[in-house]
Amino acid sequence: MHGVDNGGGRMSVVVTNVERVERGVVEALAPFGVATIHEAQGPYGLMAPYMRPIYPAALIAGTAITVSVPPGDNWMIHVAVEQCRPGDILVVAPTSASDCGYFGDLLASSLKAQGVLGLIIEAGVRDVRALTEMRFPVWSRYVSAKGTVKATLGSVNIPIICAGAQVNPGDFVVADDDGVCVVPRARVDSVLASARARERKEAAVRARLVTGELGLDVYEMREALAAKGLTYRDGKD
Amino acid sequence: MHGVDNGGGRMSVVVTNVERVERGVVEALAPFGVATIHEAQGPYGLMAPYMRPIYPAALIAGTAITVSVPPGDNWMIHVAVEQCRPGDILVVAPTSASDCGYFGDLLASSLKAQGVLGLIIEAGVRDVRALTEMRFPVWSRYVSAKGTVKATLGSVNIPIICAGAQVNPGDFVVADDDGVCVVPRARVDSVLASARARERKEAAVRARLVTGELGLDVYEMREALAAKGLTYRDGKD
Amino acid sequence: MHGVDNGGGRMSVVVTNVERVERGVVEALAPFGVATIHEAQGPYGLMAPYMRPIYPAALIAGTAITVSVPPGDNWMIHVAVEQCRPGDILVVAPTSASDCGYFGDLLASSLKAQGVLGLIIEAGVRDVRALTEMRFPVWSRYVSAKGTVKATLGSVNIPIICAGAQVNPGDFVVADDDGVCVVPRARVDSVLASARARERKEAAVRARLVTGELGLDVYEMREALAAKGLTYRDGKD
Amino acid sequence: MHGVDNGGGRMSVVVTNVERVERGVVEALAPFGVATIHEAQGPYGLMAPYMRPIYPAALIAGTAITVSVPPGDNWMIHVAVEQCRPGDILVVAPTSASDCGYFGDLLASSLKAQGVLGLIIEAGVRDVRALTEMRFPVWSRYVSAKGTVKATLGSVNIPIICAGAQVNPGDFVVADDDGVCVVPRARVDSVLASARARERKEAAVRARLVTGELGLDVYEMREALAAKGLTYRDGKD
Amino acid sequence: MHGVDNGGGRMSVVVTNVERVERGVVEALAPFGVATIHEAQGPYGLMAPYMRPIYPAALIAGTAITVSVPPGDNWMIHVAVEQCRPGDILVVAPTSASDCGYFGDLLASSLKAQGVLGLIIEAGVRDVRALTEMRFPVWSRYVSAKGTVKATLGSVNIPIICAGAQVNPGDFVVADDDGVCVVPRARVDSVLASARARERKEAAVRARLVTGELGLDVYEMREALAAKGLTYRDGKD
Amino acid sequence: MHGVDNGGGRMSVVVTNVERVERGVVEALAPFGVATIHEAQGPYGLMAPYMRPIYPAALIAGTAITVSVPPGDNWMIHVAVEQCRPGDILVVAPTSASDCGYFGDLLASSLKAQGVLGLIIEAGVRDVRALTEMRFPVWSRYVSAKGTVKATLGSVNIPIICAGAQVNPGDFVVADDDGVCVVPRARVDSVLASARARERKEAAVRARLVTGELGLDVYEMREALAAKGLTYRDGKD
Repeated sequence: MHGVDNGGGRMSVVVTNVERVERGVVEALAPFGVATIHEAQGPYGLMAPYMRPIYPAALIAGTAITVSVPPGDNWMIHVAVEQCRPGDILVVAPTSASDCGYFGDLLASSLKAQGVLGLIIEAGVRDVRALTEMRFPVWSRYVSAKGTVKATLGSVNIPIICAGAQVNPGDFVVADDDGVCVVPRARVDSVLASARARERKEAAVRARLVTGELGLDVYEMREALAAKGLTYRDGKD
Repeated sequence: MHGVDNGGGRMSVVVTNVERVERGVVEALAPFGVATIHEAQGPYGLMAPYMRPIYPAALIAGTAITVSVPPGDNWMIHVAVEQCRPGDILVVAPTSASDCGYFGDLLASSLKAQGVLGLIIEAGVRDVRALTEMRFPVWSRYVSAKGTVKATLGSVNIPIICAGAQVNPGDFVVADDDGVCVVPRARVDSVLASARARERKEAAVRARLVTGELGLDVYEMREALAAKGLTYRDGKD
Repeated sequence: MHGVDNGGGRMSVVVTNVERVERGVVEALAPFGVATIHEAQGPYGLMAPYMRPIYPAALIAGTAITVSVPPGDNWMIHVAVEQCRPGDILVVAPTSASDCGYFGDLLASSLKAQGVLGLIIEAGVRDVRALTEMRFPVWSRYVSAKGTVKATLGSVNIPIICAGAQVNPGDFVVADDDGVCVVPRARVDSVLASARARERKEAAVRARLVTGELGLDVYEMREALAAKGLTYRDGKD
Repeated sequence: MHGVDNGGGRMSVVVTNVERVERGVVEALAPFGVATIHEAQGPYGLMAPYMRPIYPAALIAGTAITVSVPPGDNWMIHVAVEQCRPGDILVVAPTSASDCGYFGDLLASSLKAQGVLGLIIEAGVRDVRALTEMRFPVWSRYVSAKGTVKATLGSVNIPIICAGAQVNPGDFVVADDDGVCVVPRARVDSVLASARARERKEAAVRARLVTGELGLDVYEMREALAAKGLTYRDGKD
Repeated sequence: MHGVDNGGGRMSVVVTNVERVERGVVEALAPFGVATIHEAQGPYGLMAPYMRPIYPAALIAGTAITVSVPPGDNWMIHVAVEQCRPGDILVVAPTSASDCGYFGDLLASSLKAQGVLGLIIEAGVRDVRALTEMRFPVWSRYVSAKGTVKATLGSVNIPIICAGAQVNPGDFVVADDDGVCVVPRARVDSVLASARARERKEAAVRARLVTGELGLDVYEMREALAAKGLTYRDGKD
Repeated sequence: MHGVDNGGGRMSVVVTNVERVERGVVEALAPFGVATIHEAQGPYGLMAPYMRPIYPAALIAGTAITVSVPPGDNWMIHVAVEQCRPGDILVVAPTSASDCGYFGDLLASSLKAQGVLGLIIEAGVRDVRALTEMRFPVWSRYVSAKGTVKATLGSVNIPIICAGAQVNPGDFVVADDDGVCVVPRARVDSVLASARARERKEAAVRARLVTGELGLDVYEMREALAAKGLTYRDGKD
């Protein structure tokens, strides 16, 4: 929930020209979706399950522009827009829990004009119908029309913690119906390799399962289960 | 959550012939939707974000018939139906928290026959599929099939607090995908004026933002941000 | 939330060949849906309202295969697949609260191949988009891509408590947009009779309400309300 | 949660010299405590049960000074201190949900110097140990060390909704281990009469119950229960 | 949360003379407390962690008298008092979620006069200060002064589900600072044997740990950890 | 909630000999407590407010040993004990949400023997009474007797996210009645300087406030408030 210190003390700062995961890798990772990428990465990077999409069947993958905002104050989102490039995803975390509606169709219009793919925010969003109609996807903790002020600074492109996951500027972010997952820049190549291996294996398994073959046999689990002491009892007896 | 005293002590009462916001004003306000009307009104009247619609893209605006009900007892909703007129919206709050399903397709059929536009309830609703098919919109805290009894009185058309917002009978109520907002009768004219002004302004801003112009410039924020101490640092350095 | 003891101590067990509610009764009960069946049964068997479907307008009715799983461990679901027959519904409860994603499209493919109708799980599910496309319905407490391990045993077809409702293997289970309801095998006949009687009565009531007749008159409530002390006051006075 | 409009539009305002419930009535009501006063008043005025005291066995009763604050901004609490008189209780509600720590030992020292009895806040409080040692009681939704800013105005002594209860400046407020209850100025006399009658009756009942006499007989419930259809069955049969 | 059907249909019933766990076994089990008894029993019978004691350091163990109550209606608690004997514990579950204060010092006086040891309730309790002073312990989900009505029947001594655990009348119930645990009558002997064995073993382990010996060695875990692939890396490198 | 990647992929690892904040700095920072240290550091490092102490008035300050554990599996806590030195604090986060009781009096005995000051865990703890009697303080999200298994590895002394705050091994941790706060090793000196400056300033302010002087004057706020547009209105008019 809280912003992570960037080593620079308390001063509000906008970091420009952050390094981003390469476009090619983003495009290669994107089709795998949240569940496979998260599995490929291990128990890191998944945001809490209260982060939900405002409409079903959206999937985005891109590079993170991070924003640390005060509770009930969306001023820094306006500042962050200028730092965005096509293919970016805005990731916003308040410094304390907030259910305000930080973001609506005006900001979405502005982000869309910069080529931003969508918004991840551990707070509220509004104008949900308009955002749905313009197909600007948002994953948020709340939907709320409660307005915000523009009175206090925050920071752009510092490391933040959003919904329990650490996000550094330039990190790979993927979001779909299963939630939101972040992959650090340094790990995208190994995660991509792991996701590809995983999908190959799953395709083979799926082909067997759909014919009715049992996972107990496909995964060869019976021996291990028996060794653990699993017993069977006939319910008719 | 709790009913607000109507000055008449504890007696259960049904107030008839309540004054309502004029139809013309309702129709003028309706198209603005929850987010704009709430912004126009200031930090009042918005219900808590746990009030969610049972299906997407519904929008209703009308005049409140209020119902204070005991936990797990929907008797007074039947009483309230008789007080409804075309263009009304039923707003129901239990006197203590309840996740019972107070309302289903029979009551919806009855309300629809009276010209009621929809239901706002800080408790549960059921028969969601039937309500969706008949297009009777409901904003509720829960979806639940748990039934209620008819054993204890409540009141109709007294002031209530529903999901954190005060609702007086006859008040203007608007609900859409962003939630539910209430405007007191005495304030509808000023809110309407303010909403119109707001929308004119937003249209002009939107026209600039979609071309890629930055909010920082449209809203002329740069000077104020610098005065607050915002600094920029190149991420490449 | 917690597994119910089956009298057999702590040993992990899979009970095979459980007796199930007869197919004919399942088919007769199914069309009534959750709300009517729950009303017909009395205040039993309804799961808590946090059990939500992953897509709207699904309705399933079948016989329960129950699974008690450790937190964060989905091994026993693989074991349970073998016990499933066409017309079954898998009902899964963790022994302590968990928001892990226990189930995805691979397991769904496997269950579908066995003729299973859907999944009820008081934990998380993932691959929601794929499950939606293949129309395999799930009612769950969470949507989450967080993976599980396969390290610890549980049990299949023992009595469990899932989302506050007791479920015995072979029980009747119905799930739709209103939630999930369980009917014990011994009670399905009386519940069916009661549901039929209830629906006949409701059809007659609905026919009168849609014409604008008031529930106050249809249900003959006015006398009882007056006896309780309900009073009317004109709001114009 | 949200401030109630005081009819004066959006302008931030401090209302001075508000009328308060008379000291004599406050002192007469205080010893009854929250549960009895709430029962005497009917289903109004009780705050939600998430409002908890920071230490046990505190009981305060006094007159409300109300404060509507922005999320994460405690500036107006400093403004409100000046409006306080001996015997007042500060009641603070944010305009949207906030878990910030708005209040600590410095503000408590200041309020204590003005004769204020305690704080009711639908947000966070900090310095809990110091507040406990100085015996300044607080009922809050959260305990949190998260700081606030002083950047945006709110209002003092306008009607607010705090934890689901409406509070007008000058109202009677009572708080103890059971929670917080508000009585409007216009109703204190009737509530006092009702509380006294209630306590007399309860004392008589208590005297009989402690001897082992059953409530079934003391309240003469047996006939009504039988009429409703209550039956007894011997568990040995 | 919901009452479990007792096979007798919907009729409200009071079952008298229920068989209870023998006093000798209760007294033998009591000192082990919730954590040890729950461990001895396996993953059954523990209530959800939201069940909290109203004051610290209370410990009770006794036999369950069960009460299924409607939401916001405490009539059946008065009925249940008559069924209580010395050494019993009252266990109350509403048929749908409720935060009402069902129970206060009058009912506690009455229960105490019957020799009841305490109350377990998946709803609210009030008069917390008085209950604390008279040392009548309560484990509840909420503290709330919100009153209830006496209008609708429930049942006494039928099987119920309370906070996720099944409770049959006469079952063994233990409650302390760790929560509430239920042991079915048929299992108390084996649980007692297991608890004794467990405690002997733990005493031996504790004696070694307090001297600074490591659990890794006491439990001989090192080999298994290495086999799983645990590696060590020096942080200074 | 989720473990933060340490750059070493998915392998379970125990990092030994981690560098810690120096004892002298720990001792200098400790007396300031959570609220002052958090204020001194800015909007970083505070854990979410659901982290609560098991008994009041405890205060610990020390160096973090971090543990990433699977849901419902406490094996790695046993592994972590060996890495602890006097003055350390164990900080434990599950890789997905869990309300299991990972920790009881045996582990506390073991940690105490190693000189560990207390436990911070974003999950459950049990044996609360024994822990209280032995004065081993714990800040946890839940109290629960639900047991865990020892089947799956995790890691010790990798960076973790606990209750929304990032914790690196060796970081400074402080916990008291206000919650839990973490300061990175690299920042302890500047935070200490800031805390000292803050406390000097607060002492001077407190001295004025206790005499009844108003914060409005002490902080010289009146001009800024007026400039923002704050107005006063007499409530008698």
